[in-house]
Amino acid sequence: MNIQNYINTIAKCSRPAEGVTRLPFTNDHVAANKLLKKWMTDAGLKISLDAAGTLIGRYISPIKNSKTLLIGSHQDSGYNSGRYDGIMGIILPILALKELNKKKISLPFNVEILAFADEEGVRFPTALMGPRSLAGTFNLKDLKLKDKNNITIEQALKNFGCNPKNIKSLKRNKKKLLGFFEIHIEQGPVLESKKLAVGIVNGISGISRLKLEIEGYASHAGTTPMHLRKDSLAATAEVINTVEKIANKNNNFLATMASIENKPNSVNAIPAKSISFIECRSVDDLKRKRLEKEIIKKVKSICKKRKLKFNINKTYDQSAVSCDKKMINKLKKSFNNLKLNPFVLMSGATHDASAMSDLCPISMLFVRSQKGLSHNPKEFTSENDMQIAVKVIEKFLINYKQ
Amino acid sequence: MNIQNYINTIAKCSRPAEGVTRLPFTNDHVAANKLLKKWMTDAGLKISLDAAGTLIGRYISPIKNSKTLLIGSHQDSGYNSGRYDGIMGIILPILALKELNKKKISLPFNVEILAFADEEGVRFPTALMGPRSLAGTFNLKDLKLKDKNNITIEQALKNFGCNPKNIKSLKRNKKKLLGFFEIHIEQGPVLESKKLAVGIVNGISGISRLKLEIEGYASHAGTTPMHLRKDSLAATAEVINTVEKIANKNNNFLATMASIENKPNSVNAIPAKSISFIECRSVDDLKRKRLEKEIIKKVKSICKKRKLKFNINKTYDQSAVSCDKKMINKLKKSFNNLKLNPFVLMSGATHDASAMSDLCPISMLFVRSQKGLSHNPKEFTSENDMQIAVKVIEKFLINYKQ
Repeated sequence: MNIQNYINTIAKCSRPAEGVTRLPFTNDHVAANKLLKKWMTDAGLKISLDAAGTLIGRYISPIKNSKTLLIGSHQDSGYNSGRYDGIMGIILPILALKELNKKKISLPFNVEILAFADEEGVRFPTALMGPRSLAGTFNLKDLKLKDKNNITIEQALKNFGCNPKNIKSLKRNKKKLLGFFEIHIEQGPVLESKKLAVGIVNGISGISRLKLEIEGYASHAGTTPMHLRKDSLAATAEVINTVEKIANKNNNFLATMASIENKPNSVNAIPAKSISFIECRSVDDLKRKRLEKEIIKKVKSICKKRKLKFNINKTYDQSAVSCDKKMINKLKKSFNNLKLNPFVLMSGATHDASAMSDLCPISMLFVRSQKGLSHNPKEFTSENDMQIAVKVIEKFLINYKQ
Repeated sequence: MNIQNYINTIAKCSRPAEGVTRLPFTNDHVAANKLLKKWMTDAGLKISLDAAGTLIGRYISPIKNSKTLLIGSHQDSGYNSGRYDGIMGIILPILALKELNKKKISLPFNVEILAFADEEGVRFPTALMGPRSLAGTFNLKDLKLKDKNNITIEQALKNFGCNPKNIKSLKRNKKKLLGFFEIHIEQGPVLESKKLAVGIVNGISGISRLKLEIEGYASHAGTTPMHLRKDSLAATAEVINTVEKIANKNNNFLATMASIENKPNSVNAIPAKSISFIECRSVDDLKRKRLEKEIIKKVKSICKKRKLKFNINKTYDQSAVSCDKKMINKLKKSFNNLKLNPFVLMSGATHDASAMSDLCPISMLFVRSQKGLSHNPKEFTSENDMQIAVKVIEKFLINYKQ
């Protein structure tokens, strides 16, 4: 079993360009699903395609009326993206089930491998239609949204062989579900820095964005002494360093100031207006909101000290999603069984699991990304790391049994 | 003598728009010179126009072969500028000489009031032709430079009644000069903050500009932990605050970071490249160069600590011009005679005096600008402040005599 072969084979289902560009409901998607169906069949899975374009492979339990564990990720990519993001999270559990099937190990629950159509949201101005349909949170009005060739999602689904009218009926009964488990590349450098192949995700961070506008007073850099300046950029710089310090001393909290607009932005005029954004992320919403308040307080005191007017407004807020403690514990047990360090980390990015959390408990397994690269043709995860991930999935399924 | 009347009358010699727009060698310049000639004549001055378009009014000493003190500033303005910048430095010494003339006080040296044509450099892509011609530093090739209507300086001079061929002969013999004295609005807030009408300039600051490029590494703000980031903007922010601190604790030194370009400047991507400028100004070139080195050292240590590559290059360097100590002392004496605080400040902006310093000793008197405003229709200097300035000039001329 050379997993890199699977990855490289399906990476060819892409527009002919650098990296992978596989948009939902395209011929590349059709070609990718054809491969996935073959691999699912080889693993002993029963195949179906749901009305939202999710390809499903079922590993059916011999125990009647047993519950179902959902496992999956997305088949699509962004433009000129990598070979692992999303698709690896479909291939690895198929290979884990293939092992179980080969060893004739049956499970006391059904497993469904879900290959979602669209997580990246690149073709249409929406995303996560697959998991949202299962959770009953998909807005049917979105079927009218169009791609840049004026094709609606509805039409694209029909062309793909799906009946959009049946989307409403996709909503799952959560009582029949054990949970949703997603395997994904980390898309960050943490596992690499820890020299670990895999890690257990404790949650998907909540995100807030604060827009900060500081007003200075434009005056001549040559004729305005330091103590008479009202410099909006110097104040913003102080905020940037303060926000960085707050983030540095708080675990499980990220704060980023990455966007700045400065006016008049002339080398010899004291800055009169600086607009920046403060992005806060944490898996702990209470902590995030507490530190947001601390940041706003610091902004106030910096601007007060400098006698500058300011405005700070929240422009975005998305709550965190916690991974299920029971599922995390089962993952930890699997790690221990395999003598792996059960290292826990947060997910800073949004995933299919985010939308699935509206339906059932979720958990995630991250696999090391070389240099933390993602959404990049150079995205890379090693054969060895993927082999370890498959063993973890297999062990996780077996532990679930017990 | 209501000086504001003079100011307001000559302000009308302007394009019909908000504020004053009086470009060199235009009909507005002709009209302004007509008024200046009348006022010079009223003050007992002998009038001439030199080949570079400088209107000259001579207050001739009864002592033959006596030396000459030059006093002046520029008649032109920028677009939609103020009523005081430049022109006030011609009117006030005319009025001081008018007083001396009225009192029949003769001087043991000649005085020439110089109304330079072009200091702002707005019409043609060069400036300071008047003082440069006197100093012998005017590049004759510049006569071919054109305004936006394709009129060369040469043609404009001819149309104005000047013979550009004679510019070369304008160079003055410095042995026959006592020095150059310029009266100008401060264009900054220092005198206002000190509640002083006038101040003595110790020099025109030297200027250097350093271009700083810091390289980070673009990564996902959600997936990159704080300690694994390479954030070029956070590093630049630290530089901005460090540069500000260095400037705050050093007198006679200004440092400004007012221009920043940040890439990719996306709210959720760690900044990968930040380009900024550090502008340093001081009347003390040695101090400026020493503090420039200190800044560069700090940049190095900030980038080393953050493991970031950087590039810092000097893009501009203009030496400081010191005002003549003897002339400063005579000004101080005049201040003391008039019971004025002999407050000394630097000039952060360039003036006609900068170019005149290539010819002879220079000195400057600054007059308070309301709110430090300049190059703005709201530029304002009070009647009282101008009256005080005229008294200082008168006293200065009398002290020069002794």
